[in-house]
Amino acid sequence: MHFISEQRLDDGVLEREFTLGEIPGFLWMPASASVSEPLPLILLGHPPLGLRRMYPRLVARAQHSAAEGFATATIELPGSGDRPRLATVDQAGADLRRALEAGEPVTDEIVDALILPLVEKAVPEWQAALDALLGLPELGGPVGYSGGVISIGVRLAVVEPRIAAAGLFAGSFVPRAMFEEARQVTIPLHVLLQWDDEGNDRQAALDLFDAFGSKEKTLEANMGGHTGVPQSAGEAAAQFFNRHLK
Amino acid sequence: MHFISEQRLDDGVLEREFTLGEIPGFLWMPASASVSEPLPLILLGHPPLGLRRMYPRLVARAQHSAAEGFATATIELPGSGDRPRLATVDQAGADLRRALEAGEPVTDEIVDALILPLVEKAVPEWQAALDALLGLPELGGPVGYSGGVISIGVRLAVVEPRIAAAGLFAGSFVPRAMFEEARQVTIPLHVLLQWDDEGNDRQAALDLFDAFGSKEKTLEANMGGHTGVPQSAGEAAAQFFNRHLK
Repeated sequence: MHFISEQRLDDGVLEREFTLGEIPGFLWMPASASVSEPLPLILLGHPPLGLRRMYPRLVARAQHSAAEGFATATIELPGSGDRPRLATVDQAGADLRRALEAGEPVTDEIVDALILPLVEKAVPEWQAALDALLGLPELGGPVGYSGGVISIGVRLAVVEPRIAAAGLFAGSFVPRAMFEEARQVTIPLHVLLQWDDEGNDRQAALDLFDAFGSKEKTLEANMGGHTGVPQSAGEAAAQFFNRHLK
Repeated sequence: MHFISEQRLDDGVLEREFTLGEIPGFLWMPASASVSEPLPLILLGHPPLGLRRMYPRLVARAQHSAAEGFATATIELPGSGDRPRLATVDQAGADLRRALEAGEPVTDEIVDALILPLVEKAVPEWQAALDALLGLPELGGPVGYSGGVISIGVRLAVVEPRIAAAGLFAGSFVPRAMFEEARQVTIPLHVLLQWDDEGNDRQAALDLFDAFGSKEKTLEANMGGHTGVPQSAGEAAAQFFNRHLK
């Protein structure tokens, strides 16, 4: 992990840009962070639209989290931003758009090709980022995962024991195989669903929530489309992490 | 409205017991309440098990609400506690228990007979209580409704314009007629659902949430049975009322 820049944002949050091998990433923490009180960490998931495009929303989440005493970090997803494209995923994305425009059903084949290679490639990268991040003296854990492609969050919750709680966003297509995987999740979950998300299958989201093996899981559904998550939902997610990571 | 007793509870909450005609009720408020700053009010709904039996849970809700700066009030439901029984509702309750014990489906007839007379009789009583309560100098509104038999909350939200926001508990049988009525609800709603509520139909609860006409509505589903609502759900509900009644 190489830090390539550092800046102090307006509200006293310290932003450090890094690379992990070829993968760019960001680490944010309250400027008051010290090695004597290592911080809990939240990994900020995001859709595969590129870190540069997602930056304003990510930094807003980072600033809210810093105000609650959390460090946050994120890395670029495989195939996004300046990273090499993933040809099969790009093809599946094109197939998906074609199906949606034609009003045709989105087949399992399209969803699998769109999501599974991303999960396979991204999850070990987030684990490697976690190795590097937890080596920093300012960060002590526990670790949470928040948002982004829900299948990545599900896989991380299953395979990565250092993740103690996850806030998931039921707003992307879910391969059938992930429902089986969801049964193996046992950590506390806070799942957000936008009730009228145009690009999401509400029943599949409810089925996925039902499938999670966690004894403690909350579904919060709000009105509106994919990008209409109300501010109050962010506050509820913050409280979830306050309960489980402190 | 006649006040028949007054006591100051341990944590500085003032409890006043009253009767409204033949109907017993309670009013709670922070002891620091004054006529110069009239309080917002939350009506505390409850299941038809009698105020005396519900008192410990009601007073806990009242104390939490008082800490947030709310007055709270509740009245006995028709047919409960020391009030005259409602023969048709009692009969429907017996039919319900018989059906559940025999593993038979709960028919629309049973649900209608169990709930509709209660709604018809209770709602005007809660409105009369509201008339009397808002005549007190310490209470100014706005007014919220919270919990209890969800069909009573739905009807109140439709017919009582003084209720500005409602926190509903999707934990009782819902007559089919109420789904139509739910479309007429336009106030902000916070709906709690216990995912594994043994005495509740999860799909009906999701359908009812979908039916509400409110632009702002949140469904919060938590693991566990009817009485297993986690403490965090109470905090989320408190925040909902803080957003809408202050």
